[in-house]
Amino acid sequence: MKKISILGSTGSIGTQSLDVVRNNPGFKVEGLSTNSSIDKLYEQIEEFGPRHVSVGTEEAKYELLRKLKDGGIKDVEVYSGESGLLEIARDESEILITSVVGMVGLLPTLAAIEKGKKIALANKETLVTAGEIVMKAAEEKGSEIIPVDSEHSAIFQCLNGERRSEVERIILTASGGPFRGRKLDELKNISVREALNHPNWSMGSKISIDSATLMNKGLEMIEAKWLFDIDMEYVCPIVHPQSIIHSMVEFVDGSIMAHMGTPDMRIPIQYALTYPYRARNNVEKLDFLKLKSLTFEEPDRDTFKAIRLAVDSANVGGTMPSVLNAANEVAVELFLKEKIGFLDIADSVEAAMEAHTVKSKPSLEDILEADRWTREFVVSRRI
Amino acid sequence: MKKISILGSTGSIGTQSLDVVRNNPGFKVEGLSTNSSIDKLYEQIEEFGPRHVSVGTEEAKYELLRKLKDGGIKDVEVYSGESGLLEIARDESEILITSVVGMVGLLPTLAAIEKGKKIALANKETLVTAGEIVMKAAEEKGSEIIPVDSEHSAIFQCLNGERRSEVERIILTASGGPFRGRKLDELKNISVREALNHPNWSMGSKISIDSATLMNKGLEMIEAKWLFDIDMEYVCPIVHPQSIIHSMVEFVDGSIMAHMGTPDMRIPIQYALTYPYRARNNVEKLDFLKLKSLTFEEPDRDTFKAIRLAVDSANVGGTMPSVLNAANEVAVELFLKEKIGFLDIADSVEAAMEAHTVKSKPSLEDILEADRWTREFVVSRRI
Repeated sequence: MKKISILGSTGSIGTQSLDVVRNNPGFKVEGLSTNSSIDKLYEQIEEFGPRHVSVGTEEAKYELLRKLKDGGIKDVEVYSGESGLLEIARDESEILITSVVGMVGLLPTLAAIEKGKKIALANKETLVTAGEIVMKAAEEKGSEIIPVDSEHSAIFQCLNGERRSEVERIILTASGGPFRGRKLDELKNISVREALNHPNWSMGSKISIDSATLMNKGLEMIEAKWLFDIDMEYVCPIVHPQSIIHSMVEFVDGSIMAHMGTPDMRIPIQYALTYPYRARNNVEKLDFLKLKSLTFEEPDRDTFKAIRLAVDSANVGGTMPSVLNAANEVAVELFLKEKIGFLDIADSVEAAMEAHTVKSKPSLEDILEADRWTREFVVSRRI
Repeated sequence: MKKISILGSTGSIGTQSLDVVRNNPGFKVEGLSTNSSIDKLYEQIEEFGPRHVSVGTEEAKYELLRKLKDGGIKDVEVYSGESGLLEIARDESEILITSVVGMVGLLPTLAAIEKGKKIALANKETLVTAGEIVMKAAEEKGSEIIPVDSEHSAIFQCLNGERRSEVERIILTASGGPFRGRKLDELKNISVREALNHPNWSMGSKISIDSATLMNKGLEMIEAKWLFDIDMEYVCPIVHPQSIIHSMVEFVDGSIMAHMGTPDMRIPIQYALTYPYRARNNVEKLDFLKLKSLTFEEPDRDTFKAIRLAVDSANVGGTMPSVLNAANEVAVELFLKEKIGFLDIADSVEAAMEAHTVKSKPSLEDILEADRWTREFVVSRRI
């Protein structure tokens, strides 16, 4: 029986992770967390009986405590805020699924690494903003980081039994998002509803917007750089609108290994939990005869400049990827609140990157400081 | 410096193997063989300086000896016939590439296994006709069998770092050959030239005809059964006309690993030689942006009944796959000599299978006897 805890258990990855747990008798839930979905967390507590949970605020904590009392549920410790996430991250579980969205995942991930836990990483911002620090800590503590993103899980699986020294390049597939094929002037007046409407994957709102701007692919390129210890120039994005090939690795001999499957996040989530084993599941199998065709295109880097910004930030290095990430987080939030337009997202990121004075070889404190500076910059730019 | 010998060095796989050797300084050619391409073998002797070679007949041997004398080439031993192939198979090389066509590869392959050599297997008939005996001998002698067929090399690579117990099925891709989409009555008057015209791969005449009848896929299904120790029902052929995905393995969790690349046999040949390493080469890299689209279809088992016959022969087992293979070898030869029509190939195989009294758990002698019986049956049927 393996104990697992989930940060962000009420989100898209979190609930799908619990669905994987539901179908795998070998796992026991130790801890859960949500920011504000108290009703959903309450249901999860009822079903999975965790030892402890954490919620976003003190207010939410008292709301949950009231519900637990009314429901007659005892024996569950309730924490709140950042320190609550750290409690869960440091608990007795062997695996931590980091499915919170954004920079907020960084400190809990580091705390879990400190305990030597296996990390099922679904929080790409952690590696984007502090990849060097996180990967170094994981190596030192013998903490395995297994990617949950479908692309990185695919790459991880393509590398099974292979030598890193024989990798020629990583081919990161991208669906192209809901606006593939459109040009800049067609994207000016995009509504939130249109941007949330991803063609292949059902995901949370932050990642759906990131997919629409292609910033998601840019963040994933940086994530791949750190996870697989490879230079950015060898991480090549390609648009594959059907999302059947989840990514590929090309080797020096011209062989390309690809991971394919139904676009269902429960496959990579389960793989991260069961690795190095695979387990049978009830996910729909890919039927090749139903596939019309698999196609590939160059990403349109002029229309979707987020990819270029991400590559630039990684090449500059230091605190710059943290600025890219923080500016994007704030700008996506502003877009979701209809405070800025769709194209303003990448513009905000670009403006923050231009205004930022990079610190190279940053400490964790430098990164947190760059993150704070960027958030203020992007918000104040809009006042 | 690894010593290698090649049975069938003047054929399509043989010459491509030597091209791989030409570009890999780590290999030294020990032995070569041809049936009747004496001029080509002479050139190979000049370039690669093998210690010994073998040719098909005594007559060919004296022709070659004359040429060697005229050219001032000494220090190369020349053998002939079946015993000559066995000499090469048992020599001091560490790797034997078995790229002869047909049943003739069986005894030399077993001889090389007896010596504990690594076998780069490009002679699928060996496993079709005597898979159980060959695989058992290889296990006993610690002889590694690395497939050279692009499909089996692909599957072998998809299994890198994976557990056989977690394999759900093997998906064997087929180009569909030059007559994909045609129906029986359109295939009656197919000429040899039309049948030799494969859309994607440049190959020898036997395998090109086998590709046109889809018998090649049937033989490959049986080869896969033995190589990967999997029941025939889990070896699933699928038509993929572009030959970019060379085959796939589906695992119990719904993950599918695929091997892709330019359709160039030097990739799987080199992999068999360098395994478990990969080496850089000058094979053209796959350009996804130039691919129009990748598509998949069900094979037409009514028009191309060879697939059904192959599956039936494997399910019956015993000497039946040897009958399938021998009947097909003879029938293809008769077709190439314009003695029978295109559709007569599968008909001949079916007639031989119907007339054969199966021997189960066959010894090597039983297999050789079934092979002889079948060859006589198919030839006499045509007199």
